[in-house]
Amino acid sequence: MTTTPTPAHKSSTLISADRVEGTAVFNAKGDKLGHVEDVMLHKLSGKVAYAVISCGGFLGVGEKYHPIPWSLLTYDIDKSGYVLPVEPRQLEEARSFAAGDLEGDDTEWRREVHTYYNAPAYWM
Amino acid sequence: MTTTPTPAHKSSTLISADRVEGTAVFNAKGDKLGHVEDVMLHKLSGKVAYAVISCGGFLGVGEKYHPIPWSLLTYDIDKSGYVLPVEPRQLEEARSFAAGDLEGDDTEWRREVHTYYNAPAYWM
Repeated sequence: MTTTPTPAHKSSTLISADRVEGTAVFNAKGDKLGHVEDVMLHKLSGKVAYAVISCGGFLGVGEKYHPIPWSLLTYDIDKSGYVLPVEPRQLEEARSFAAGDLEGDDTEWRREVHTYYNAPAYWM
Repeated sequence: MTTTPTPAHKSSTLISADRVEGTAVFNAKGDKLGHVEDVMLHKLSGKVAYAVISCGGFLGVGEKYHPIPWSLLTYDIDKSGYVLPVEPRQLEEARSFAAGDLEGDDTEWRREVHTYYNAPAYWM
């Protein structure tokens, strides 16, 4: 899709999903955890449910996909990426998914994921 | 980004932004209006604000971008695309934007757009 080279993350209120994708994700210490691979939208509520963080792997092989509650990500202008307040180990030990398993219905796993990261529910 | 060939639009509750992008948009009669070029997310509320519909143009030149309130789009399995209850002419006459102008702050134009399409406000 069309992308422009200038980042519009700063004080904007709207952000393009295309621009979110590919953005690096760091922990609070500045260690890189991965990058945003995709964004999952909840159709009924019209809310952004998860950012899908891709970690590890090489050229798409062996990558793990972690659905991160959208509300947990804060954009850091200096880092040019999102900051996620978890340790790399916490992310490694979190439940991960194959890319295709994140579409569909998250009723079974969303409580687990939101409890794990101590994040507010998007579906309430 | 990684995409899988199987469509997951049907009865799923979550949809990937990557999959929404590129999907055709029709009016109620079945005329093709364009396709979804991007999805705009409202950072503060965590809501999906607009689907950006791209109409006309050739290889990206002369295309117009229309922000369509997300709540107006209904997926139609038979059409393999979204249905938007407007006439092609209504879309042509709607305010359109350059791609980059849709990021940032929509406070100035969102009321106009939502009133034009008679759509509920995402920011309430």
